[in-house]
Amino acid sequence: MFLAVEIIKKKRRGLALTNEEINFFIQDYTLGKLPDYQMSALLMAIFFNGMSDLETNSLTKSMLNSGITIDLKSIDGFKVDKHSTGGVGDKTSLILGPIVAAAGIPVPMISGRGLGHTGGTLDKLESIPGFNTQLSLEQFISAIKKIKICFIGQTKDICPADKKIYSLRDVTATVESLPLICASIMSKKLAEGADGLVLDVKYGDGAFMKTAQKAEELAMALMAIAKSNGKKVSAILSDMNQPLGRFAGNALEIKECVEIMQNKSFRNSLGRDVYKETRDLSIKLSGIMIFLSGKVKSESEGILLAEEMLTSGKALAKFQELCEIHSGSLKDLPIAKNVLEVKSKSSGFVHSYQTEKIGMCGVKIKAGRSVISDKIEPTAGIEFFYKIGEKVNSGDILFKIYGSDLELLKTIKQDLEDSVMIKLEKLNPLPLVLKTIY
Amino acid sequence: MFLAVEIIKKKRRGLALTNEEINFFIQDYTLGKLPDYQMSALLMAIFFNGMSDLETNSLTKSMLNSGITIDLKSIDGFKVDKHSTGGVGDKTSLILGPIVAAAGIPVPMISGRGLGHTGGTLDKLESIPGFNTQLSLEQFISAIKKIKICFIGQTKDICPADKKIYSLRDVTATVESLPLICASIMSKKLAEGADGLVLDVKYGDGAFMKTAQKAEELAMALMAIAKSNGKKVSAILSDMNQPLGRFAGNALEIKECVEIMQNKSFRNSLGRDVYKETRDLSIKLSGIMIFLSGKVKSESEGILLAEEMLTSGKALAKFQELCEIHSGSLKDLPIAKNVLEVKSKSSGFVHSYQTEKIGMCGVKIKAGRSVISDKIEPTAGIEFFYKIGEKVNSGDILFKIYGSDLELLKTIKQDLEDSVMIKLEKLNPLPLVLKTIY
Repeated sequence: MFLAVEIIKKKRRGLALTNEEINFFIQDYTLGKLPDYQMSALLMAIFFNGMSDLETNSLTKSMLNSGITIDLKSIDGFKVDKHSTGGVGDKTSLILGPIVAAAGIPVPMISGRGLGHTGGTLDKLESIPGFNTQLSLEQFISAIKKIKICFIGQTKDICPADKKIYSLRDVTATVESLPLICASIMSKKLAEGADGLVLDVKYGDGAFMKTAQKAEELAMALMAIAKSNGKKVSAILSDMNQPLGRFAGNALEIKECVEIMQNKSFRNSLGRDVYKETRDLSIKLSGIMIFLSGKVKSESEGILLAEEMLTSGKALAKFQELCEIHSGSLKDLPIAKNVLEVKSKSSGFVHSYQTEKIGMCGVKIKAGRSVISDKIEPTAGIEFFYKIGEKVNSGDILFKIYGSDLELLKTIKQDLEDSVMIKLEKLNPLPLVLKTIY
Repeated sequence: MFLAVEIIKKKRRGLALTNEEINFFIQDYTLGKLPDYQMSALLMAIFFNGMSDLETNSLTKSMLNSGITIDLKSIDGFKVDKHSTGGVGDKTSLILGPIVAAAGIPVPMISGRGLGHTGGTLDKLESIPGFNTQLSLEQFISAIKKIKICFIGQTKDICPADKKIYSLRDVTATVESLPLICASIMSKKLAEGADGLVLDVKYGDGAFMKTAQKAEELAMALMAIAKSNGKKVSAILSDMNQPLGRFAGNALEIKECVEIMQNKSFRNSLGRDVYKETRDLSIKLSGIMIFLSGKVKSESEGILLAEEMLTSGKALAKFQELCEIHSGSLKDLPIAKNVLEVKSKSSGFVHSYQTEKIGMCGVKIKAGRSVISDKIEPTAGIEFFYKIGEKVNSGDILFKIYGSDLELLKTIKQDLEDSVMIKLEKLNPLPLVLKTIY
């Protein structure tokens, strides 16, 4: 018999909780036997005193065991998944999924919704007319068997503990805790039954982890849990100090992905291809996924194969197959009724973006959500033209704002203008991928 | 407009909250506009990051302003009250109240119930047949005008914020936080409208504050709030490494107090008067109260006057008057149906008591409560015979256990036996009062 208050006190004192204590707390909380206020006190105590690797692993497994585990054993081959810690304009799943599937590797994609400044893959896909993400588990598995890839959302049967705890963390200022973040991510990923996992851990202003050091800590902790649960895993640390690629916004990001898979480019006033970062990051992640699957002998061979899948049009064909299986049609992607330009008032070099603030601008125009029940406007979004370190002249278009409600679009104009800092001093461009960890 | 989650985050980051932020949180929580889970997260963040004097004062005033303030202005003279941080066998209010009132100084006593290992004055008084603590505010004030003393419980109109927050702290392991303890104590004391206050801050195993240093920190913090709110205040640090006096248990403690006021003594096998500590501490606190009131020029003059009130029988007469006004009769104090002896199995010197554990034994036999809705058994209690440093021989009675349910009494026998450590080495007796602070 455990007493919840004694477990909270133990963690508050900085002592390690036992597997049994963690199980008791998570189980009884999920069943509604423990009140929110005791969980939030425990979460805050964990925020301050942390958790050992052993405790984090126990927490992850408790949360995993609060729901069902998807059984993918009937699908042949090494199943590989990707998880990103989230950012602004982060759309790589839509490209790397088709690339890896086109290379013959099964990709079971269980994706999330956008919340706060970060977007979600399901919302992006649902901006495609007809696209249905509400498939049954049987349909999901049979689709992967047939075309090697399928997307579904988390069902309520997967990690119900995580859903309940995450909602509570969100309103009690206990989101930014390494063991809690790890357990939340890994309980879901372990439930999804893939054999391998690539982690795209973002760092910078637009990421959960504001510094590369924090991101690396998270990556290491996530990898430790994955490995101790018998998964093959790798992680990259990638830049989220600026939005990724050309667009943030659901239908706009689909457009970007499709054009990249069509091998199109889009050049800014300096002649740089604004699609380059999205393409490079998708290729990099695909290469690692292909390598993890065992299909090739090195990451670089994986990257070569990924490039071949993209340039040959096989990835695009796979994406079209995917849309068909989900009843979606790429023919009539919705287009925003209104576009607003935000021009630079000064000349110089882009010094920094307040990327989280830009993400929150997206929420204001309904490209994202502030609470999970908010409805998304699929055509709403923001276009970016210049990367950090690039030269801009007074009058250059820094952003375009897209959406149906012009008055609403106007409300974020000033915020966007304020979110970019232009200085006379030129900064070196940031590396897109800082580190790859195996 | 404030966002609760932002205020929690601010405190979590170790920043000081403004008066307005604290007011918002306390007000909205008291009104039920903020949920328990956000308050418990804030409480845990306060536990870890503390509060400045300014913040603690703001919190105290917010909690004070959540309810009514008792107006004692119609009562002539300097009104003085006492607060103890609680312990096992701590019954001094029942003696010092009558002493100070007998000296002609008004003593408005707003007392609490026992919870956990510590007892409560109201429960003790209610073990007197007929004793009614449910007086109206008007009856309370008119009684003080007439006989200089009256006891009531906290009404629900006083500091409703504290009641709600205290219940929450109790189940979220956030009790032991200096600013929270300070605000809880002082908001109630300020609401009670006395002009002066003596604080009995206990330290040791049976106290909230386990060390003298922690107790002194609390005393200083409480005094700072009292002074900044225009109250005369003094504090003592007193020992709670062992139970105070002869008994812990409601009717038993009344018996001890009455016998002390009757100038009786009760000697253990070594010839020491087991009542001495209770009497000494009551005299010390009374002396300080009388001095604070301005009736005498020094604490030692106050102590002399207090002794006179006790030895002359005037305190006893005052206590009898008090019982009459509360409709209580001392004639038929209830007596336990069963008594169980716990004998020493070894010889040596008492080295230590696990005083909190002894208090929890009292809860088990219903001399106290584990939750506020528990019903008290007035005759239940424990008798103590030896102080730390005293010699005991194998076979000496260490404890007697009193109560109506013999089977229940047996359940704590082993725990009591385990709660005392007897060693061959003789410890020096502990000072009863370590320090007096003005």
